[in-house]
Amino acid sequence: MSDYQAFRVELADKIAHVQINRPDKVNAMNADFWREIIEIFRWVDATDAVRVVVLSGAGKHFSSGIDLMLLASVGSQLGKDVGRNADALRRKILELQASFVAVDQCRKPVLAAIHGYCLGGAIDLISACDMRYATVDAQFSIKEIDMGMAADVGTLQRLPRIIGDGMMRELAFTGRSIDGAEAARIGLVNRTYESQEALLAGVMAIAADIAAKSPVAIRGTKEMIRYMRDHRVDDGLEYIATWNAAMLQSEDLRLAMTAHMTKQKPEFAD
Amino acid sequence: MSDYQAFRVELADKIAHVQINRPDKVNAMNADFWREIIEIFRWVDATDAVRVVVLSGAGKHFSSGIDLMLLASVGSQLGKDVGRNADALRRKILELQASFVAVDQCRKPVLAAIHGYCLGGAIDLISACDMRYATVDAQFSIKEIDMGMAADVGTLQRLPRIIGDGMMRELAFTGRSIDGAEAARIGLVNRTYESQEALLAGVMAIAADIAAKSPVAIRGTKEMIRYMRDHRVDDGLEYIATWNAAMLQSEDLRLAMTAHMTKQKPEFAD
Amino acid sequence: MSDYQAFRVELADKIAHVQINRPDKVNAMNADFWREIIEIFRWVDATDAVRVVVLSGAGKHFSSGIDLMLLASVGSQLGKDVGRNADALRRKILELQASFVAVDQCRKPVLAAIHGYCLGGAIDLISACDMRYATVDAQFSIKEIDMGMAADVGTLQRLPRIIGDGMMRELAFTGRSIDGAEAARIGLVNRTYESQEALLAGVMAIAADIAAKSPVAIRGTKEMIRYMRDHRVDDGLEYIATWNAAMLQSEDLRLAMTAHMTKQKPEFAD
Amino acid sequence: MSDYQAFRVELADKIAHVQINRPDKVNAMNADFWREIIEIFRWVDATDAVRVVVLSGAGKHFSSGIDLMLLASVGSQLGKDVGRNADALRRKILELQASFVAVDQCRKPVLAAIHGYCLGGAIDLISACDMRYATVDAQFSIKEIDMGMAADVGTLQRLPRIIGDGMMRELAFTGRSIDGAEAARIGLVNRTYESQEALLAGVMAIAADIAAKSPVAIRGTKEMIRYMRDHRVDDGLEYIATWNAAMLQSEDLRLAMTAHMTKQKPEFAD
Amino acid sequence: MSDYQAFRVELADKIAHVQINRPDKVNAMNADFWREIIEIFRWVDATDAVRVVVLSGAGKHFSSGIDLMLLASVGSQLGKDVGRNADALRRKILELQASFVAVDQCRKPVLAAIHGYCLGGAIDLISACDMRYATVDAQFSIKEIDMGMAADVGTLQRLPRIIGDGMMRELAFTGRSIDGAEAARIGLVNRTYESQEALLAGVMAIAADIAAKSPVAIRGTKEMIRYMRDHRVDDGLEYIATWNAAMLQSEDLRLAMTAHMTKQKPEFAD
Amino acid sequence: MSDYQAFRVELADKIAHVQINRPDKVNAMNADFWREIIEIFRWVDATDAVRVVVLSGAGKHFSSGIDLMLLASVGSQLGKDVGRNADALRRKILELQASFVAVDQCRKPVLAAIHGYCLGGAIDLISACDMRYATVDAQFSIKEIDMGMAADVGTLQRLPRIIGDGMMRELAFTGRSIDGAEAARIGLVNRTYESQEALLAGVMAIAADIAAKSPVAIRGTKEMIRYMRDHRVDDGLEYIATWNAAMLQSEDLRLAMTAHMTKQKPEFAD
Repeated sequence: MSDYQAFRVELADKIAHVQINRPDKVNAMNADFWREIIEIFRWVDATDAVRVVVLSGAGKHFSSGIDLMLLASVGSQLGKDVGRNADALRRKILELQASFVAVDQCRKPVLAAIHGYCLGGAIDLISACDMRYATVDAQFSIKEIDMGMAADVGTLQRLPRIIGDGMMRELAFTGRSIDGAEAARIGLVNRTYESQEALLAGVMAIAADIAAKSPVAIRGTKEMIRYMRDHRVDDGLEYIATWNAAMLQSEDLRLAMTAHMTKQKPEFAD
Repeated sequence: MSDYQAFRVELADKIAHVQINRPDKVNAMNADFWREIIEIFRWVDATDAVRVVVLSGAGKHFSSGIDLMLLASVGSQLGKDVGRNADALRRKILELQASFVAVDQCRKPVLAAIHGYCLGGAIDLISACDMRYATVDAQFSIKEIDMGMAADVGTLQRLPRIIGDGMMRELAFTGRSIDGAEAARIGLVNRTYESQEALLAGVMAIAADIAAKSPVAIRGTKEMIRYMRDHRVDDGLEYIATWNAAMLQSEDLRLAMTAHMTKQKPEFAD
Repeated sequence: MSDYQAFRVELADKIAHVQINRPDKVNAMNADFWREIIEIFRWVDATDAVRVVVLSGAGKHFSSGIDLMLLASVGSQLGKDVGRNADALRRKILELQASFVAVDQCRKPVLAAIHGYCLGGAIDLISACDMRYATVDAQFSIKEIDMGMAADVGTLQRLPRIIGDGMMRELAFTGRSIDGAEAARIGLVNRTYESQEALLAGVMAIAADIAAKSPVAIRGTKEMIRYMRDHRVDDGLEYIATWNAAMLQSEDLRLAMTAHMTKQKPEFAD
Repeated sequence: MSDYQAFRVELADKIAHVQINRPDKVNAMNADFWREIIEIFRWVDATDAVRVVVLSGAGKHFSSGIDLMLLASVGSQLGKDVGRNADALRRKILELQASFVAVDQCRKPVLAAIHGYCLGGAIDLISACDMRYATVDAQFSIKEIDMGMAADVGTLQRLPRIIGDGMMRELAFTGRSIDGAEAARIGLVNRTYESQEALLAGVMAIAADIAAKSPVAIRGTKEMIRYMRDHRVDDGLEYIATWNAAMLQSEDLRLAMTAHMTKQKPEFAD
Repeated sequence: MSDYQAFRVELADKIAHVQINRPDKVNAMNADFWREIIEIFRWVDATDAVRVVVLSGAGKHFSSGIDLMLLASVGSQLGKDVGRNADALRRKILELQASFVAVDQCRKPVLAAIHGYCLGGAIDLISACDMRYATVDAQFSIKEIDMGMAADVGTLQRLPRIIGDGMMRELAFTGRSIDGAEAARIGLVNRTYESQEALLAGVMAIAADIAAKSPVAIRGTKEMIRYMRDHRVDDGLEYIATWNAAMLQSEDLRLAMTAHMTKQKPEFAD
Repeated sequence: MSDYQAFRVELADKIAHVQINRPDKVNAMNADFWREIIEIFRWVDATDAVRVVVLSGAGKHFSSGIDLMLLASVGSQLGKDVGRNADALRRKILELQASFVAVDQCRKPVLAAIHGYCLGGAIDLISACDMRYATVDAQFSIKEIDMGMAADVGTLQRLPRIIGDGMMRELAFTGRSIDGAEAARIGLVNRTYESQEALLAGVMAIAADIAAKSPVAIRGTKEMIRYMRDHRVDDGLEYIATWNAAMLQSEDLRLAMTAHMTKQKPEFAD
């Protein structure tokens, strides 16, 4: 693992723990953050020893969202021609989006463990994760509306599939803050925990469970669920048939079957 | 504001309150209703002073749905050739649908405040609104099934995205009546209130909150959520990047940022 | 009704009760099962006297999923060329999928009544039904992950639309077992019952309610909801307009209208 | 027929001849043009006596495209806020597009007869017609590129389906002028004629042929081809099955069949 | 090969020659035809010894389209309720479509060899083939328009992708007859031949060429081209990557590579 | 410009001339080729001084396609588990595809100038370019079929939109070689030239023409045509409206308009 400015990354027991690590800045997402997260998830994708990722925030909060300094610096680079500015802004937004696309399309499951503030860009980030878990007193807010802009790095695109259309609009229009309990009620997080320690312990346990499964099976499962977010049922059926045409020839099935028969725990190769 | 037969429309504090106003007919949707609602939402779209819409029903109920007189008159205009009748009916249905498409595609958020009966066509109507709020004792029913027909002005198209596929089918097949409390549980409404007064006060407060946000930001947010109902995540990301390429050059960002720094409440231009 | 090996089928009061009937094998899905279910639903589609289907399991469980013997026999038929094996496996998977596509596309509503185990392939099956009801102590698990494979007969394709994206991933990655109560909370089932008897009685009552509705209206409603799972709102509006162009010329509307006026219960032709 | 400023409209023998009628301005598309063309096609849609439309230009040219005065006036209405300008421009473009959407979605076939200049906006217009015919010496050019802008009222959207992707890009990037002969070779027009008189006579003959067909059959055929431009083959098959479910019950089939048997020419009702 | 009423089927040198064989009825498509063609293509799909299919007509013509007797018999089975008739007609159309879907989705390439009349339903049929070849004096016409109906078994769905949008509409609206030479010019057929003998000899030579290729490669190629008719470029790239993930592990590549090196003709297993 | 192993790149008069430069290897695509082409097009995208790209081959041929050494080395890296091999192959294919996606999505127009052999992977490459031009005696062949595999880096995905469905299948199934003249007839290339010199001169002239246009207009035009390959007409109209909402505020329009009025040639900023 390289040395990161905005993150701390640890790998143990096939679980990569990726921590946003700017606690004194409420883990605000600066230029380092946006660049390094791509590198980290490229490493996750390429490293067979990583089976699952846990994403959390160091210090008292998950993250307060995009660093306002970064926003300001983008603004200061604009010129006089509106058309050329638009072209530059469009490319900048696409570039920022790419950081969370890397999370979304990571071949391994990504579990977000959220405590404290989870605001603005942080909502965009957790929307790109596979599952979300939080402390009861975490605070979520689609803060972009109060910056005078529509959220543009993923919240509006991915969250409606997770929490449904009705509450989505209320949260996006008002920027209203909700706590972990309400987040669980509307499906934004899968479960809440009483404290940060309980949260991390709980999420690590789920991660360990997933890490013990066949990586071939996990990969296919994730690919299919991701695919279905955007495709038709008939296309999805054809796609999994084509996918499993190869994957059912893997050793992992025989291994799993044998383990099942002998009531033993299978050990799958990376 | 023009003079309407089926509605009462008031504009105050940037909020347009649109009331279905045929209380002695349980706010049944007659020919006036279907024509005027398009005019009203065209006016909303074109009037910068309107930032948000609240839609409610005058009297004891929200609405009992389509006026049976109107249905009967459509039937009486059919001729002898099944093909030409089909052509005429198809165009009539598309014409009625257009009334609620105007609500759905309105550039400003539309909040439905529902009390009493909300039956048949009224479910089609609230499915086209952004958010729904109700009294605990409101009564919802997809009544069309008991008229011997499949609902054809929007319920079957828009509601599955709001309440999910499983309960959707039960309600559509059985026409079962549910109250506000159950409606909240399945996500049909965002929140319930004890009385009609509390409902209107609560919804007006949410509307006022939205009316104070940047209209540029609200518009983009609504457009994106509407877009995501029907499009892929990657298309949505590209679309918001293109949209914000222009909108991030608006004054509203700087205004919001300054307000944020100075802890003041920003005042956005219409 | 023919004589089936893996099912018992009864028709009474316009309701077809289809029971998986291999109780000594925990209703595991063997070759008979996969072939017969297509025949049964073809018969349902073609038989006007059937208005609605209830699907349940004989004995102590709904079903433990695919018969491992069947899986093993598929594996044993593979040859030496990976490409030709892939072709054969792909066609086998498509063939198995077709059994549940027959359930999904059945023209009549299909209600699943679930008690005891509902594992692996059984989740694929109930995902293809219109509605799901369960005993409080039923046990659901996406078991495929523990067989070293991604589920490939429908769970990953259809379930996300029913329970939302977040919990979907947790259940699919971990294979965690949930009971009826949790299933109800996340929208997997519409309602729970205290016992198998109460379950069957409750589901039969809902089925009877649906069986009394206009079959023309039920068919259109099901077709539209199925269509919306995969299509845009504007396409759905155009499709229902074209559909109802013919169906609104049916006698059932007049019948329903008259019954409504005279406060009588209408009797619709098959 | 109303009195139009930018058009002359004649109806004879079930054919509406719609002529752009600003010959001294090279039939440039001014504000009148954009507004009146919607009215005209609304009238065409609503008038059963119109079975087919021929669209041509009065004077020496078909049309030189959008009136530069109109473009200039749009520009002059812009304010200081880039975001609000963008909103206003976006709505203006959508409004102009709606004029050609009315042509594209007209329920009757529209045949363009083109001579002389057919430049810029005129290419957008003919791309929205069903078929195109031209004199050998007509001149076509996607002129927008030389105005410093991407064409935005339909050329880039509809033309690729007509002439294929390769030549499309060359014509759009270079604005190169092509004559009728080359237009026929690449599929932009269906046929060329030696003179304006021969062109009009030829197109009127095709129009008369179409006008004698069953209007029910023509309407369904146009709807399906339009639908297929944007939809999948399987969706198209399902849609025509639903459409013809009603239309095959029309008298026109029996009429056509009888005429076929008796070798007579059928007369279809409007 | 079974004994067919409406076809003659021969298999030689890995080529199945499927001939419509009702020459005294101008190869009109009767009930036998529609049923048997499904059986034949099911056999083609399941028979490894068949690598490619040639489809032609016995006698002086390819086919005059649907048998009018069949159309009349469908009409005579309709009852009094327009809605139930619509349901029955819809299902009948879907059933007829399924016959040509079997051709379209056949896993082996299907080459149509056309001489004499190719009218109405015959155009629907050849639109579902992979490639089309004809004699110069063959006659093609979308005859349905003269039967008072929109073509509903595939022409309007599949032909626009083959001949482009402009000429498609002219042929569909007018039913105009075109010969082989014009058919070649607009891309409806790939090549013309002077006589029926030359046609069959030519098509058989192309078929023999294809039959000698790797069946694994042919299958993947056909699947991808069929897929691209309805899908996005990015989806297509992902699909072929998933497909070839298995297929590139086939022996055929090594065989082809070796043959290439040694300048010998490879012999691929069925 | 960096130093490349497989390419020579020159920039003059706003035109980047990218030459495949392994003439002694018939410009076969080796590992250097696949890596460097991404770098080159990233540079093109980021360099405002580049307005258009010309792509050609050094020596006697355009390119013979993928280097067989590369294919062999991929094969040699496979292990024993079919499933893990499939995963590795799938990622390798996606990686190769990315090289041509970079060409396809390049923000500047890319013109291919083809002479001599253009085989296999070279067809995939030119399918990703905007336009294609060739010498009359160039030779094109979808060679993959003779390698025992379905083409998987773009030919099957992009070419059907360019040459139509019918001839596409013939060329893909047979691998038949066609010359420049036939390529022009079927739309694969836009024009042919008598010699390599005439070809380069001709393509450079077209490139120079494009380089003189407004880069804002060219970019929007390319983006829209690319978008329409995969999207609906209504989506395309909405997208260009959103795009031009910003771009019509560019200086380039005013510049173009003034130039038009004064009959002068405009000079657009990069």
